[in-house]
Amino acid sequence: MPYFDHNATTPLLPEAREAWLRASDEAWANPSSPYRLSARAHRLLDTARERVAAHLGVAPGEIVFTAGATEANNAVIRWAAQVIPAGACAVVSATEHPSVLAPAREVFGARLVELPVAPDGRCELQRLDAAAAGFVAVMAANNETGVLGPVDDIDARCRASGAWYLCDASQWIGRLPARGLAPHAFVVGCAHKFGGPKGAGILRVPPAARAAGFRAQRGGEQEGGLRAGTENYAAIASMVAALEWTGAQAASIESRVAWRSRFIENVSRGVPGIVVNSGDAPCLWNTVSLRMPAHDNTRWVVRLDKLGFEVSTGSACATGSSAPSHVLAAMGLTAAEARRTARISSGWETTERDWQLLAEAIANVWAQLEAEGAGGNVVRI
Amino acid sequence: MPYFDHNATTPLLPEAREAWLRASDEAWANPSSPYRLSARAHRLLDTARERVAAHLGVAPGEIVFTAGATEANNAVIRWAAQVIPAGACAVVSATEHPSVLAPAREVFGARLVELPVAPDGRCELQRLDAAAAGFVAVMAANNETGVLGPVDDIDARCRASGAWYLCDASQWIGRLPARGLAPHAFVVGCAHKFGGPKGAGILRVPPAARAAGFRAQRGGEQEGGLRAGTENYAAIASMVAALEWTGAQAASIESRVAWRSRFIENVSRGVPGIVVNSGDAPCLWNTVSLRMPAHDNTRWVVRLDKLGFEVSTGSACATGSSAPSHVLAAMGLTAAEARRTARISSGWETTERDWQLLAEAIANVWAQLEAEGAGGNVVRI
Repeated sequence: MPYFDHNATTPLLPEAREAWLRASDEAWANPSSPYRLSARAHRLLDTARERVAAHLGVAPGEIVFTAGATEANNAVIRWAAQVIPAGACAVVSATEHPSVLAPAREVFGARLVELPVAPDGRCELQRLDAAAAGFVAVMAANNETGVLGPVDDIDARCRASGAWYLCDASQWIGRLPARGLAPHAFVVGCAHKFGGPKGAGILRVPPAARAAGFRAQRGGEQEGGLRAGTENYAAIASMVAALEWTGAQAASIESRVAWRSRFIENVSRGVPGIVVNSGDAPCLWNTVSLRMPAHDNTRWVVRLDKLGFEVSTGSACATGSSAPSHVLAAMGLTAAEARRTARISSGWETTERDWQLLAEAIANVWAQLEAEGAGGNVVRI
Repeated sequence: MPYFDHNATTPLLPEAREAWLRASDEAWANPSSPYRLSARAHRLLDTARERVAAHLGVAPGEIVFTAGATEANNAVIRWAAQVIPAGACAVVSATEHPSVLAPAREVFGARLVELPVAPDGRCELQRLDAAAAGFVAVMAANNETGVLGPVDDIDARCRASGAWYLCDASQWIGRLPARGLAPHAFVVGCAHKFGGPKGAGILRVPPAARAAGFRAQRGGEQEGGLRAGTENYAAIASMVAALEWTGAQAASIESRVAWRSRFIENVSRGVPGIVVNSGDAPCLWNTVSLRMPAHDNTRWVVRLDKLGFEVSTGSACATGSSAPSHVLAAMGLTAAEARRTARISSGWETTERDWQLLAEAIANVWAQLEAEGAGGNVVRI
């Protein structure tokens, strides 16, 4: 099954499935209860935390397990709105995920500054006035285009100016090495983007934020007091199994970068005039945002689906919406250009052959749509 | 394994385990993506929502799937703080779960009024001035004592006065019939309290709250726009399987009430002077809050654990805390009395024989501790 929408979600890795079952069968007790069955679950939870901390190169106490990236992004932003100085602004990249942009617009209101991006999707870092900002959010890798953010540079600037930095690394963690990523920032990861289960995520809380009173959900004393709620150890164990499995694949990244480049060459030959929206910007090895020379993306996507290839018209979060992608709009695409864009995102199980077949399928769909001519736009979708 | 701490969490029902696996294998796609694999997941999600709605007797559009009760309670309270009139107070029962009390204290501050309870844990409803309140939270069943709240009465009063009502039914749903429970309220349920997975919950949002702009997490348009974040269909399917399984057990509730009563008789014979903290207040069929005539609860709990019975010193959320239970304090118990209290909570798989064996084990532990005499308090725990 050549599935090319891993930025929406990924199938569960066998290792992650097995870990979930083992935890559900053997370590289902509440880790906070006062008997041996729970003590065992508590020890396993501690070990999971140590393993995630090792993956990120931080201390175990900085890792908070969440139910996903949306929860984490909302929690950090709500807290930042309470603690940044009254005169400070909040700077958020115009291409952030809706789970950053929507809460930021709500809580910061007129204090929100959207950081523009260049036509290739790269954040216009020279426009970031970290000194005026109390809070900055620039993602590690964009979910629609795969464009990488200047994470370390922003981390250093925020560190120097004292601004809080939220680094949404939902599309990075589990795909690229994450050790030392944004060492002073809140860092967000999401299990179901890398073969883990849905409903599990990672929030790295920088020690300074803990000291400044950061808390996500309130209630019980779980997660070192930072996030109340019964710990979902089965999902956590499953996520850790997936994370470590992906870590072991890192040696193949170079090949995967080459497969992506060859796909772009192939599809450019098959469909004259096709454009990669991110141009030459540094990108994830798995993501291509492709703009077709003609025909709405819904038509391409449906045809490709019939041929057995799942690709997306854009972010799954926005599928319910008829508005054009805010990411592509920020890059300067017209609404019509955005409607001709498809998002392609591979996974660890994707092969070089899958990429080749996808390029051929896209060329075939292009030929079909062109053969049907303008009339085809009317009589079929 | 006579496990008696179901109010902390429950083992996963085989039906729930099977449903999780089937969903993870066959319906893992993002329900919001634009291809057939996702359309299938979307249809299954719709069906799950209809089934939960039928269980509660509400419309499917009123059901929001969450990652658990703590998330839901936090979200409702944060929203209520934004929408209630400036002059209105918020009334919260003194025995609410920490996931209600902690966020309520944070967001309402001086506007928070704690509603006292009688010595048996029953909420002092005559002290509720619904007319002055913009928000009321009184749980359906207490997690430490099992005492039932006057839910329908409060729902009617809040309806009449226009106050928002949060009915935390985490310990009720999946244990007692929930059709028509608090028909105008926010109603919260939690899968892992009734044999479902951790990381899944139900929030019933009353239509008036949707109309008034209620939103939990912000970001994508999932859950009818009320709760952003990729839907965790595997956990939802697993929760629904558990919920429907428990619904089919309702015929046995009468027997289970009798088993609990007989346990209280047996343990009262075995341990002269033992007290049920809730007295004659109406209670869940599964929960007994027992106050020992002597000896700290940690000693009882450890001894019972060694005999193979898991019971709790109190709420798992509070295990990290050395403070005495706020629930028992609100009922007028001294700190010393609270430290002599154990929480016993059975599940659907608990048998009459398990209850009998537990009563015998408690009597044996009592005899041991008494035989060791005062010296025993010092030399062993």
